[in-house]
Amino acid sequence: MNKNLKIATIGGGSSYTPELVEGFIRGYEKLPVKELWLVDIEEGREKLKTVSALAQRMVEKAGLPLQIIPTLNRREALEGADFVTTQMRVGLLEARIKDERISIANGMIGQETNGAGGMFKGFRTIPVILDIVKDIQELCPDAYMLNFSNPAGMISEAIVRYTDYKKSIGLCNVPIGMQNGFAKLLGVDRARVRMEIQGSNHFIFATDIFLDGASVFDQVLNAYIDNKDNASMRNIDGIEYSADLIKGLNAIPCPYHNYYFHTQDQLVKQNKEYENNEVRGEVVKKTEDALFELYKDHSLSSKPAQLEQRGGALYSDAACNLINSIYNNTGDIQYVNIKNNGTVTNLPNDCVVEAACVITADGPKAIALGALKPEINGYIQMIKSFEHMAVKAAVEGDRAAAIAALNMNPLCPSDALANQVFDALLEAHRAYLPQF
Amino acid sequence: MNKNLKIATIGGGSSYTPELVEGFIRGYEKLPVKELWLVDIEEGREKLKTVSALAQRMVEKAGLPLQIIPTLNRREALEGADFVTTQMRVGLLEARIKDERISIANGMIGQETNGAGGMFKGFRTIPVILDIVKDIQELCPDAYMLNFSNPAGMISEAIVRYTDYKKSIGLCNVPIGMQNGFAKLLGVDRARVRMEIQGSNHFIFATDIFLDGASVFDQVLNAYIDNKDNASMRNIDGIEYSADLIKGLNAIPCPYHNYYFHTQDQLVKQNKEYENNEVRGEVVKKTEDALFELYKDHSLSSKPAQLEQRGGALYSDAACNLINSIYNNTGDIQYVNIKNNGTVTNLPNDCVVEAACVITADGPKAIALGALKPEINGYIQMIKSFEHMAVKAAVEGDRAAAIAALNMNPLCPSDALANQVFDALLEAHRAYLPQF
Amino acid sequence: MNKNLKIATIGGGSSYTPELVEGFIRGYEKLPVKELWLVDIEEGREKLKTVSALAQRMVEKAGLPLQIIPTLNRREALEGADFVTTQMRVGLLEARIKDERISIANGMIGQETNGAGGMFKGFRTIPVILDIVKDIQELCPDAYMLNFSNPAGMISEAIVRYTDYKKSIGLCNVPIGMQNGFAKLLGVDRARVRMEIQGSNHFIFATDIFLDGASVFDQVLNAYIDNKDNASMRNIDGIEYSADLIKGLNAIPCPYHNYYFHTQDQLVKQNKEYENNEVRGEVVKKTEDALFELYKDHSLSSKPAQLEQRGGALYSDAACNLINSIYNNTGDIQYVNIKNNGTVTNLPNDCVVEAACVITADGPKAIALGALKPEINGYIQMIKSFEHMAVKAAVEGDRAAAIAALNMNPLCPSDALANQVFDALLEAHRAYLPQF
Amino acid sequence: MNKNLKIATIGGGSSYTPELVEGFIRGYEKLPVKELWLVDIEEGREKLKTVSALAQRMVEKAGLPLQIIPTLNRREALEGADFVTTQMRVGLLEARIKDERISIANGMIGQETNGAGGMFKGFRTIPVILDIVKDIQELCPDAYMLNFSNPAGMISEAIVRYTDYKKSIGLCNVPIGMQNGFAKLLGVDRARVRMEIQGSNHFIFATDIFLDGASVFDQVLNAYIDNKDNASMRNIDGIEYSADLIKGLNAIPCPYHNYYFHTQDQLVKQNKEYENNEVRGEVVKKTEDALFELYKDHSLSSKPAQLEQRGGALYSDAACNLINSIYNNTGDIQYVNIKNNGTVTNLPNDCVVEAACVITADGPKAIALGALKPEINGYIQMIKSFEHMAVKAAVEGDRAAAIAALNMNPLCPSDALANQVFDALLEAHRAYLPQF
Repeated sequence: MNKNLKIATIGGGSSYTPELVEGFIRGYEKLPVKELWLVDIEEGREKLKTVSALAQRMVEKAGLPLQIIPTLNRREALEGADFVTTQMRVGLLEARIKDERISIANGMIGQETNGAGGMFKGFRTIPVILDIVKDIQELCPDAYMLNFSNPAGMISEAIVRYTDYKKSIGLCNVPIGMQNGFAKLLGVDRARVRMEIQGSNHFIFATDIFLDGASVFDQVLNAYIDNKDNASMRNIDGIEYSADLIKGLNAIPCPYHNYYFHTQDQLVKQNKEYENNEVRGEVVKKTEDALFELYKDHSLSSKPAQLEQRGGALYSDAACNLINSIYNNTGDIQYVNIKNNGTVTNLPNDCVVEAACVITADGPKAIALGALKPEINGYIQMIKSFEHMAVKAAVEGDRAAAIAALNMNPLCPSDALANQVFDALLEAHRAYLPQF
Repeated sequence: MNKNLKIATIGGGSSYTPELVEGFIRGYEKLPVKELWLVDIEEGREKLKTVSALAQRMVEKAGLPLQIIPTLNRREALEGADFVTTQMRVGLLEARIKDERISIANGMIGQETNGAGGMFKGFRTIPVILDIVKDIQELCPDAYMLNFSNPAGMISEAIVRYTDYKKSIGLCNVPIGMQNGFAKLLGVDRARVRMEIQGSNHFIFATDIFLDGASVFDQVLNAYIDNKDNASMRNIDGIEYSADLIKGLNAIPCPYHNYYFHTQDQLVKQNKEYENNEVRGEVVKKTEDALFELYKDHSLSSKPAQLEQRGGALYSDAACNLINSIYNNTGDIQYVNIKNNGTVTNLPNDCVVEAACVITADGPKAIALGALKPEINGYIQMIKSFEHMAVKAAVEGDRAAAIAALNMNPLCPSDALANQVFDALLEAHRAYLPQF
Repeated sequence: MNKNLKIATIGGGSSYTPELVEGFIRGYEKLPVKELWLVDIEEGREKLKTVSALAQRMVEKAGLPLQIIPTLNRREALEGADFVTTQMRVGLLEARIKDERISIANGMIGQETNGAGGMFKGFRTIPVILDIVKDIQELCPDAYMLNFSNPAGMISEAIVRYTDYKKSIGLCNVPIGMQNGFAKLLGVDRARVRMEIQGSNHFIFATDIFLDGASVFDQVLNAYIDNKDNASMRNIDGIEYSADLIKGLNAIPCPYHNYYFHTQDQLVKQNKEYENNEVRGEVVKKTEDALFELYKDHSLSSKPAQLEQRGGALYSDAACNLINSIYNNTGDIQYVNIKNNGTVTNLPNDCVVEAACVITADGPKAIALGALKPEINGYIQMIKSFEHMAVKAAVEGDRAAAIAALNMNPLCPSDALANQVFDALLEAHRAYLPQF
Repeated sequence: MNKNLKIATIGGGSSYTPELVEGFIRGYEKLPVKELWLVDIEEGREKLKTVSALAQRMVEKAGLPLQIIPTLNRREALEGADFVTTQMRVGLLEARIKDERISIANGMIGQETNGAGGMFKGFRTIPVILDIVKDIQELCPDAYMLNFSNPAGMISEAIVRYTDYKKSIGLCNVPIGMQNGFAKLLGVDRARVRMEIQGSNHFIFATDIFLDGASVFDQVLNAYIDNKDNASMRNIDGIEYSADLIKGLNAIPCPYHNYYFHTQDQLVKQNKEYENNEVRGEVVKKTEDALFELYKDHSLSSKPAQLEQRGGALYSDAACNLINSIYNNTGDIQYVNIKNNGTVTNLPNDCVVEAACVITADGPKAIALGALKPEINGYIQMIKSFEHMAVKAAVEGDRAAAIAALNMNPLCPSDALANQVFDALLEAHRAYLPQF
């Protein structure tokens, strides 16, 4: 790869892009990106223009020979790319708001990566991603694709099961967030903390934690139990877990488990948000609108501080780190979504798991985990079966698979509501769901 | 086994015993039981006396040399036995009623084999069963033990994981009930119907159905979907499943899945029963009291018709058939709970599964199932993990394992309620739970 | 299948056919075959004529309405068939003689199912079988195909891995031979003996033995060790195994293991046969020529006694029994080659194993075996890897796969000889090996 | 571990020790060893004295505060140790010479880690190692034990299967040797080459090779095939593999595979050595005697160049690197023997595999390999089954297990010779084999 490094970012008009650009600027010495293509679709033309201009100003300020190239022509951007990152949102935030509001209206958690909402985001996104993969295989077959569109787990699994493209990596900021949390509990720098995790995207458990390589799991588990704030993360209002739940699990859940362990309480909270037109998507939309106002300011030439409130702040870090580690074959450990292939022995080879991997120029190499721990095996298997069925429904347009998937998901209270919410969401998103 | 066949029935004072006796009388020609020892404990002395007397009259009427021997001395009964059947209820129906009422009062399904109630029945029963196994290994190590005490799956698993006794078989009437149901749908005799099932006790799915050996699965699945009564069974008021749920599962759930797929509706119903003091245990208690009144009638010398209403009518059939098939090495297929040992490739070897087995003089030999079907894998894995943790809690008296188990169980709505219901049930059953 | 039962036998001109016909006559009451199509190719026209005429006389003598229909038109024979049996020998006995003589000349065991010879018989046969399967899928897709052409294991595996036809069953007389042997050791009738076997065709071990369903393994193992004739079978001159080998294996090898445990001694013996022009194929050829002389005798209307010396006497029994059990859904246990699919947990799902199966109208259902026993796992894995590579070589014409396969096979002494024997056999069989 | 680092080397009087000492001197800055205890037994008193004196002179010359402490008191040395290395040879080189000569005299390869000789070295060493482990668990339970006594695979497996000590790591120089070889083929520095390996100690295959992290497997495979010297390594005279064998394997064998692929040729060579009293052990003995003469020279204060000819030169490098990586939590990749635990999905969890591991302060973390490649699965399974049985024989003194193990090993030509060589070796080593 000792050549002019070309990166194509699909969904380039996203409000996150300035963070990505900042990352590339900061890491330029080790990762000399030559061309950054920002790709978007016609509906995103305006945003793309705004974001690209800001990116251009940032690069100029930094005085780096990094070309920012906005385009609506995806194929041109992919041609000969070394890395492709995908961060698009099919149907924009409007679709997310529908996912959330319609789910809540049907008596269940409204969320963009979990439950009915997550499934429908998958339905809208997976066909587009499979299309992009087809283009990659034609135009830049050796490129790695880093996906951080949600639901990242299902999207990764769709690629693994329905294409023969080997170089997709699913990316998420949840593991980094947990690593941060444990570092805080230990009072140390994040870089000194390493984790063993088991599970699926947005559904992982930390099953071991290392400080400078030595296991400090029992210590952290106890500190976690004692910590009044044990279930929190920036964008989820956590409710405390009971000490015996955590002891019994002998594993530390990720923040999203709050939806599963405290479904009723979360639902009460979401119902209030629903009534106040303040479901997460609506809040985010306001933040985004404000961000784009800022981005338009020609005097702005750096990432505005407000972007951090947007949630998912660490995504770009994750992306830049991963690209850098592949490019430079660093061999450090990162937490990514990859084809299982024996990493977890009691999950199918062709499903996707989120796991600690050594990052090399040949991609991520997962550290063997053996079988899922019995204390958490049931949860993870259930969510993997849900994802299996949801991916099938997404690709094959199979309503029955979707209904069975929803019934399997603990966030869906009943068969009747599964059918009801499916019909309502299908109706709302018709334009993006030709497969059904 | 060409000798004087001795059977020991632990919990011999049960209201079910006349059915068992009727079974042995009917099958005497092929299965010439010489001695039937009915074992009970001090608290059951009166019932044992009543039931034994009835059994004695039944045998006399039939004119068979089958000795009925009631005893409170378990060890004497086990000495040299060929088969041991266990059907006891630790804490009697009073304990069951508490399991049900306390669960409902804490906002969750009250049931003797599922959820919190099932778990506590396991807590009370498992230590007693492990004690019996110890006696068997000393006094009649070659005897098969047929357990039909509930929760049969957890009890079987406790034996497999915490003893080295190889000859326990868990028995249930649910598979026979399903077989009956399919026979009815097909309009044929039950004997012509065979099933492939996947799952755990009270949590199985039919994944294939054969008529005279040929698969008629698609036909039955469609008939099942069309049947307005598709989720019913004598002792569970079923709610219809949606067509797409069943199509998506591509498997037919057992009646107990009603609690999982229609939790809210079942809860509403149970709350009414709770208010009317008509939870299942209370209803059963009335039936039993009436039955014992009948049993006391010295002119009665056959199983009264009212026993069938008691639910679980087919248990004794199941027990007699199984004993007969082992004794005579018939090689027919029955559905029992056995150590997995590769029957299902993606469950641990040392867990227990309910599966179709060829019954031989060397015990049940399971037909290989490969991996659980992805459409139902999640459910079954989850319930097996729940059982794993619950068995651990039962044997080791581990509260944290119990809390984590409850949280994993879909019938438990939240971490807080898991803790609450555990404390209430522990309080109620203190006398039977020295391990905690 | 309550209709006119049609069976197509490919390789109908084989000297074995009278046995098959005898079997159908004997079993007619339960298995009323209406049409038996005997299919052969142009080169076999004469033999087919002779055998068909004899079969016709046999049927007439029995006074049964079973039609014998000889044909060179395979597709006509397959059209609407209920069962297809395959027993052909590509290249006739001349090819077998070459397999054996050339192997011996290159310093290794010459044998039609093992080592280099077995591999080349596979190379010649597999493409023809895959062609037949294609025809079956078009002309009689619901028919079961029973293959008893050698090497039966590799042929079954080729079908499993390279087609989607689900109804092929590989058949062999070795398990029945072992069952007979154990019955003799026990002094009982074969029907009372059942086995657990682990392994691949011509490479199985008995890992448990049951008399009337009860395990008598230790007793048989000891009797086997004490028996001076412990390694014999009609068509292999056995050499005694040491007591500790058998104790250590804790399993009883099939007769073909003689080639593996006593390679040098067998080689010495084969070298003598080679010099005297009496390798097995040459001996068999003489027997066959004599048999065909007998068959031509118009006064003959029953299977001649001499056929039994031919070896493989029990094949037809095996075939008739299997067809009968499927047709009548008997549910008895037979030992056949089927897709593994979890039967053995540490072999791939898509390989083929020989195992005890319940025979039903839906085909064979294997009894779960768990993992291969460690004492024999190494052998079986090695032979399965050999077969995996050999099948790949056969279908893809891949010389490197063939060389690696030979090197893996314990009967091949070195890399150099692997290359040498491959070239010599390829040269000899060129006409039948277009794939290379 | 920020304290006074204490290392105990069992078999400290070995001729290898100066290399180890040199390694600790060279790496002192990063790995400040405070105390190096050299432990030996009474029979080794003289050698220990010589070696310790040399070590002392080396340390003095280097001017480092590293204490060399020779002792015959193993428990004193273990007390509070941080790392234990084991490199002893039970029965000294005399026993090795017997292993080799007696094997050859019985018609099979004589070798200290393979076949009958390797098995008997295991029989002598395993009981001693299990004893050491018991001491470690009592006296320094947190210490890592690095074993480089042969047969390292079997010894590691004995510890895994028969103790609950978790911190043993088996170490070998073969992977480093292969890495060196590939680096040479590529014309690059060894540090830039990484491998994926599958297999067991002295029986591994390289299944992928990376240069600066990017796979160059196909390139290396072709270069390896073209290289006339493709099977060589310092202490094995290699014979070239055929191109198609290597292509078919699609993997590069380690040097020891020469004994398996070219058994006959190696045997011819060994027979000559036998006649000339120049079997490997005899040659090594001469080298060692000469080395000890050198070591005695008081003017010598550095590792003499002649030590490199001894073979196994890289062992000490391997040990120092591994200790350093654990101590400093470097996270680099090394190739060690560890409990499988899912690393290879089709080998048992409790066997030992040699695999690429990330080395951390919490020990080695293996990179997941999935299932063994079918092209080499058979070989590896067979050798693992051999080792399984051999370890059982070693610990339980089970002659039958030993005979079955030998029969499974491809280097043993027959059942008869297995029995013969076992008896001869047992007779020769009686004093060290009380378990039989």
